[in-house]
Amino acid sequence: MSFIPLRLFSQEKSQSIRAQFPILEQSVNNEPLIYFDNAATSQTPHSVVEALADYYHHDNANIHRGVHTLAEQATRAYEGSRQYIADFIGAKDPSEVIFTSGTTDGINFLARGLVEDQLETDDIILTTPLEHHSNLVPWQELCQRKGAKLEYMPLNEDFQVNLSMLKKRNTENIRAIVIQHVSNVLGVEQPIQALSEWARDHDILLIVDGAQAIPHQAINVNDLGVDAYCFSGHKAYGPTGIGVCYLNERHHQQARPVQYGGEMIHFVGDYESNYKDSPWKFEAGTPPIAQAIALQTALEYINQTGVEAIAQHEAALTQQLYQGLQKIDGIELYQSPAIIARNPHGIISFNFTTIHPHDAASAYDMEGIAVRAGHHCAQVLMRKLDVAATLRASVGMYNTAAEVEQFLLVTKKIKEFFDYVSI
Amino acid sequence: MSFIPLRLFSQEKSQSIRAQFPILEQSVNNEPLIYFDNAATSQTPHSVVEALADYYHHDNANIHRGVHTLAEQATRAYEGSRQYIADFIGAKDPSEVIFTSGTTDGINFLARGLVEDQLETDDIILTTPLEHHSNLVPWQELCQRKGAKLEYMPLNEDFQVNLSMLKKRNTENIRAIVIQHVSNVLGVEQPIQALSEWARDHDILLIVDGAQAIPHQAINVNDLGVDAYCFSGHKAYGPTGIGVCYLNERHHQQARPVQYGGEMIHFVGDYESNYKDSPWKFEAGTPPIAQAIALQTALEYINQTGVEAIAQHEAALTQQLYQGLQKIDGIELYQSPAIIARNPHGIISFNFTTIHPHDAASAYDMEGIAVRAGHHCAQVLMRKLDVAATLRASVGMYNTAAEVEQFLLVTKKIKEFFDYVSI
Repeated sequence: MSFIPLRLFSQEKSQSIRAQFPILEQSVNNEPLIYFDNAATSQTPHSVVEALADYYHHDNANIHRGVHTLAEQATRAYEGSRQYIADFIGAKDPSEVIFTSGTTDGINFLARGLVEDQLETDDIILTTPLEHHSNLVPWQELCQRKGAKLEYMPLNEDFQVNLSMLKKRNTENIRAIVIQHVSNVLGVEQPIQALSEWARDHDILLIVDGAQAIPHQAINVNDLGVDAYCFSGHKAYGPTGIGVCYLNERHHQQARPVQYGGEMIHFVGDYESNYKDSPWKFEAGTPPIAQAIALQTALEYINQTGVEAIAQHEAALTQQLYQGLQKIDGIELYQSPAIIARNPHGIISFNFTTIHPHDAASAYDMEGIAVRAGHHCAQVLMRKLDVAATLRASVGMYNTAAEVEQFLLVTKKIKEFFDYVSI
Repeated sequence: MSFIPLRLFSQEKSQSIRAQFPILEQSVNNEPLIYFDNAATSQTPHSVVEALADYYHHDNANIHRGVHTLAEQATRAYEGSRQYIADFIGAKDPSEVIFTSGTTDGINFLARGLVEDQLETDDIILTTPLEHHSNLVPWQELCQRKGAKLEYMPLNEDFQVNLSMLKKRNTENIRAIVIQHVSNVLGVEQPIQALSEWARDHDILLIVDGAQAIPHQAINVNDLGVDAYCFSGHKAYGPTGIGVCYLNERHHQQARPVQYGGEMIHFVGDYESNYKDSPWKFEAGTPPIAQAIALQTALEYINQTGVEAIAQHEAALTQQLYQGLQKIDGIELYQSPAIIARNPHGIISFNFTTIHPHDAASAYDMEGIAVRAGHHCAQVLMRKLDVAATLRASVGMYNTAAEVEQFLLVTKKIKEFFDYVSI
């Protein structure tokens, strides 16, 4: 959470990036599409779609099990992607990279495969009220099943975990902390590194939902000191149906598979079986091979564009969005200026004081702008913010200052229109 | 399991099919690729790759949660595919079609989500020694965990379940039958419809692994009378990372989710939550949207080509393969002529009596032919056949009689070569 300078891409660079995303060229309701729903899913560059097509047109075969050429090519590409991803996130070894179908799949695996066996009655799992349902409901369910307790950590006024309060508490019975790296509603980044030091000292597992962090900043799981870190391909310019669960190798022995079958086995007896080592024991059945390979291509695209440069560009857009909305009457913002200054991660949550967010989202859509309206899979946070739903504008590397300007103009127009019709 | 006439596609039709699969045009080790590994994964037609590209280039957005145009387009396409698949497999309602990441995912879901809660100590799950590990190990694990018993049903000499023996047994405590529709090693089709009548009469769940059936014959889950039926996209000319679990609606209330998060919830409280109806409560997180949509395209391609015509073409190739191998000295076949006559489902398992199957598979690969060598994820069956591994040649709709001829020539050549070097 170091300071991110605000620096837009040059117009030339922006154009060359946008040229890689054909979906952005279309009109929606006769207006050029402005895609501000990147926190839900990012768009996919040419190279990723080409990687998929290349795979199906040249290498498609089932992996690990074949001695023929196609099977060897597919296996090499699949395991090559694992190595690339390990390097991308700073894992020490590719065996720490487990392919999943997405963040939700990864977190559910960790709940059953890593935490469940270590959790006893009255044990405690710590979390925050900011979590996405995918990093909350699996833990609610696990706690109910095991008679354990889910507890919300104290937050400071900026929605970050209040470490000094946390450090004062009795740590007995705390088994795990489950936490978003970056909030999908408020963009708030949690102090993962500081948490991990405290967690390690007290033998507490630290499990991080990194879905909103990976596309927007450099991540080093080793420096962060986490036990596990999950993210999705489709939020990081990759395909749908693929995700990664980083699992520190010190847990490989203890963690158990939660799906069985296919190539995760070592020996299958008539009545019981034993399993391979990590990561393969955690990857039952034919994995999403094409998607795993194309995820490498997506991360290569991020690397080529420059992960720091992307963060700076998005930080500048975030500030522009926020400051623009601040100036419009009748807009309620759910992030303080301090939050935005420290967490310019491309996410702005807001509402019109007099317009229902779903009506507003439809009005934006009429003008070609895609924003999200709803609880953003974060109902606990919605209650904390005392709203049923918000609008959310979220940017990606291909968004531009001109699009933000247009969005702000349309925001004013929507405000005026609804003011007029409600007279 | 009615009689399938042997009728090859016309040369013209074969050519037009092959033109849709660019991967088949390549050379492997300077020989035209002959892809006989379809039971592991099938190749992907142009239209499916185009459907993926179309999705990413035009409609890509997260589904169900958005009011903007892209999100609506993506949701419509995703739910449209569910409807198409329901019709394709004869489900009564699209809510019976649950998207999974593949057959293995579907079966593991059924073990935990459907059977686990109904299974008590000393209860019995019936299966066969032919099962793919994906339809065996999840049940081994469940039985161990619950103190239940896995039992192998008696088979007749053709490896089909011996129904008359089965019907004599005490049915008390039998909770479920878990069974392949078609064997991935022997091509044997099980009498699902007869089993389902018996199972229904005795209140026994019938769960079917249809991975090897769907690409090769018309399936109607309603006529079959099954409780659940799983298959994979990537074995049915579709993409990797997608599968379907058909779950009869009479189980929708009782079955519980095994993954939590994202849009499967209805209301999320601070400490507990409740869920939507089927199928959404079973689809946690962002699903493999692009793959689900492209699976429709794959099934459309099967429909356009003609599912009965495909079955007849593949039956002719199966017979040609089998009869050709029968005439070669030193080939051991694991299917009787009667099995092949009744189950011409494109799968032949064999060995050279004097050549290790992995060496033979490498020799085939040198000649451009992709066959599989190994235990085919069916170690229990391998022990029953008293082999460590077999070679398996498996055909798809794009394979031709000329390819089978070339395969048989190469088989003789491999035999002669190894006979020569071992002198």
